[in-house]
Amino acid sequence: MNHTSLPPDDRLNAFCQDSRAYLQGEDGGSLAGLTFAAKDIYDVKGHVTGGGNPDWKASQPAAEATAWAVEALVGAGATMVGKTHTDELTRGILGINAHYGTPLNPQAPGRVPGGSSSGSAAAVAGGLVDFALGSDTGGSVRIPASFCGLYGLRPTHGRISLEGMLLQAPSYDTVGWFARDPGLFARVGSVLLQTEIVPARPRRLVVAADAFEVADQGVRTALEPVVERLASLIGHSGRERLAPTSLSDWAAGQRVRASSEAWEVVKEWIDRMNPRMSFQVAESCLSGRSVTPEEVATALADRQEVMARMRTLLAGDTVVCLPTAPTLAPPRMQTMSERRPMTSRIVQLTCTAGTIGAPQINLPWAEAEGLPVGLSLIAAPGSDEMLIAFARQAAEILQIS
Amino acid sequence: MNHTSLPPDDRLNAFCQDSRAYLQGEDGGSLAGLTFAAKDIYDVKGHVTGGGNPDWKASQPAAEATAWAVEALVGAGATMVGKTHTDELTRGILGINAHYGTPLNPQAPGRVPGGSSSGSAAAVAGGLVDFALGSDTGGSVRIPASFCGLYGLRPTHGRISLEGMLLQAPSYDTVGWFARDPGLFARVGSVLLQTEIVPARPRRLVVAADAFEVADQGVRTALEPVVERLASLIGHSGRERLAPTSLSDWAAGQRVRASSEAWEVVKEWIDRMNPRMSFQVAESCLSGRSVTPEEVATALADRQEVMARMRTLLAGDTVVCLPTAPTLAPPRMQTMSERRPMTSRIVQLTCTAGTIGAPQINLPWAEAEGLPVGLSLIAAPGSDEMLIAFARQAAEILQIS
Repeated sequence: MNHTSLPPDDRLNAFCQDSRAYLQGEDGGSLAGLTFAAKDIYDVKGHVTGGGNPDWKASQPAAEATAWAVEALVGAGATMVGKTHTDELTRGILGINAHYGTPLNPQAPGRVPGGSSSGSAAAVAGGLVDFALGSDTGGSVRIPASFCGLYGLRPTHGRISLEGMLLQAPSYDTVGWFARDPGLFARVGSVLLQTEIVPARPRRLVVAADAFEVADQGVRTALEPVVERLASLIGHSGRERLAPTSLSDWAAGQRVRASSEAWEVVKEWIDRMNPRMSFQVAESCLSGRSVTPEEVATALADRQEVMARMRTLLAGDTVVCLPTAPTLAPPRMQTMSERRPMTSRIVQLTCTAGTIGAPQINLPWAEAEGLPVGLSLIAAPGSDEMLIAFARQAAEILQIS
Repeated sequence: MNHTSLPPDDRLNAFCQDSRAYLQGEDGGSLAGLTFAAKDIYDVKGHVTGGGNPDWKASQPAAEATAWAVEALVGAGATMVGKTHTDELTRGILGINAHYGTPLNPQAPGRVPGGSSSGSAAAVAGGLVDFALGSDTGGSVRIPASFCGLYGLRPTHGRISLEGMLLQAPSYDTVGWFARDPGLFARVGSVLLQTEIVPARPRRLVVAADAFEVADQGVRTALEPVVERLASLIGHSGRERLAPTSLSDWAAGQRVRASSEAWEVVKEWIDRMNPRMSFQVAESCLSGRSVTPEEVATALADRQEVMARMRTLLAGDTVVCLPTAPTLAPPRMQTMSERRPMTSRIVQLTCTAGTIGAPQINLPWAEAEGLPVGLSLIAAPGSDEMLIAFARQAAEILQIS
C-alpha cells in the first residue's frame, strides 16, 4: 500500500516537491476513488515530515508510522497523492513560507491563500485533489478556507486523534480538512469523526455583533444576505456581543496561552539547532518565550470566563455566526508591518473556538470583488456532526452549489 | 584591474564560493606580490556584497564602487583573491553561519574560528592569503584573531574610512585586518592608516585586573609570562580595575547602544523582506528592537563615564593589557544555551575599546592546550601606529616569531 511517486503536477506550488509520500487508498471504502493531500505535518511511514522548515526536516528521522488521520482516510479508500506546503512549523495565518514560497490562491490571484494549511487549501481550491488534510491551532484551517472559498472545519478539540502529527500547541491543535463540496466534506468528516453525519440542525442563531465589527465593511456587506437566509432557515435568531469587554482581550489571552505552550514544544530543538527561520516566525517563537508564568496563569483563569460565557451562549443547540476572516485574502506582497495589524484582527475572529475547544465551520457562501468571503458557525463542543450536516442541508436548501 | 576568477582552493570553508571578486594588485606598491582576502561586507565594484545572509545578497544590487579599504590595498600592490565568510550581517562573535557553514579554525581543529570576520581569520591562519580584511564592531576582529592566533587590530573609531562597507552599527563599526607576522601586519597598517609605522612604544602598562578575572584560569596562566615580559620591557607597570562597578555593567551598556543602533540599520529591510536568518541572529536583531529610548539615553550617559575613566587611565602613552577572549576557542558543536554565557563573558572583554573608540591589538603570543591565546593592548584613541609599532618591536625583542 505504501508506494512513492512524484508529487502531482503543481501549477499552484501547493505540493512539497521534495516529498514522494503516496498512499494508495484501500479497496471499497466510503471514499474509494477520491484523492487527497496532507499538510506536511502529518507523518507518512518511511518519509520525513518537513513541517515547512528545511532545518526541521533535516533534523528529523523518517516517520516510523503513518499519522492516524491519514491512515483512517486511506483505510476508507482515499488515495493520498502528496504532501502540501505549510507555514513554517504551522506558525502563520497567511500561507507565507520564506523557504518554499507561498502557494497560489486559485480563487484570488495575487492574494495569499491563507495558512498555515496553505498548500492543502490551494490544492483543493484548484481542483488538484478532492479534499485535503490541514490542521488548525489558531485558525490554520478556517482562514485558508475563507480565503480560498472552501468548506473547512476546526473540530472539537480532542475529537480527532493528533497521533503522528507535528504539534504546535497541543492544548489547541486540531486535525481539520477542506473540500469544495458540502456532501464530500461530510463524507470525509464521517471517516475522521468515526460517526455517521445524519441530518441535524441548530435551533437558534446568534449573530456575533462584536465579531462583525472587527470585519471590513465589504466583508460585512457580503455576508449580510447569507446571515439573513440562515436566520430565516433556522427560525430563531438574535444579535449579541460575544466578549463582555472586547474580542481583542480574548485574542490577547489566547496568544499568551498558545504561544507560551508553543515555545515549550520547540525550545529544545531551537536551542540545539539554531535553525534558520523567516524573521517573522523567529519573532513568533520568541514572543512565546517572553511570556511570564504569571501571564500564563492570568490567561488560563481568563479562559474559564470565556468558556463560561460561550457555554451559556451555545446552550440549546445554538450556533454563533461570525465572519471567518475580517478581510478578503490580502495581497501576496506586503511588508511585515503592513501584515501585523491585519493578523491581529484575524486572531480576534479565530480565538473564540480555539479558546473553548469548540467546532467552527467555514461556509464559502459569499464573495466580494469576485473574491471568496467565508461565514463561520461555531457550535458547542461535540457538535461537529451537527455543523457538518447543517452545512450540507443548508447549502441544498439555499441552493448554494 | 577588475577581473573575475574562481575563489581559491579552500579546505577551510573560508571563502564565499558564490563570489568571484578578484582584484589584481597594482604594480610596484609597498604590498606588491602579497595576496589578501576581504570579508564579504566590503563592496567590490560589479559584485554583490553578500553579508553572510543569502536573502540579504538576493535583495542587493551589484556594488557600483569598490570599498575604500579594498581600493587602498589594491592600489598599494596587493591582490585580492576572494571574499570571505562572515557571521550573518556581522552579527556573531564565534564565526558560526547557519547558511554557509562555519569556517574551520586551522589552529584549533574542532573549535570555532571566532567571528564575525571568520573566513578572513581562517584564511590567514591557514596560509591561504598573506593578510585579510575584517571588521570589528563588538569584537569581530579581536576575537577571531585570538582564537586563530593572529595579529589583529580594531583601530581607533573613524581612523579608516567605512566607505563601501556593509554597516552594523556605524558608531562602533571599524575596518580591521589580520596577519600572521607583525612586520607584514605593520606594512598593511601603514597603507590602511595612511601613515608610516615608525618605532614607538608605550610608557606604562596597566594590567586590567577585572578583565583577567573574567577569563578562565587556563587563559590567565597562559598569559601571565607574556604580561611579565611586557611589563619589564615597558618598565612602568601596575594593576588596576577598569570598571568602578563591574565590566558586566560596561558590557550591558555597550549592548544597549550598539544593538539599538544596529536595529535601526536593518529594520526597514527586515520589514520589507521578512528574511531567513538563523534563530540566534533574529534574536539578536530583536534584542535591539526591544531597547527603549530611555535605556539608550541612560547608556549614552554611562558611556561618558567609561570614556572619562579610560581617558585618565590611558593618559601619558599608557596601554592597558587584558585577555582578548576569556576562553580558548570553543567547540564547534554547542547549543545556543551553552554558548550564551560564554558570549556574554566575551563582551565584557571587548566592550571597552568599542565604547571609547580606542584601538586594541591582539598579540598572538601565548597558548594553552596547544591552542592560541591572545593578549590585548588597548591604547588611547589615535595611538594605532604606536600599538602596531610596539607589537612589531616587542615580538622581535621577546623573540616571538
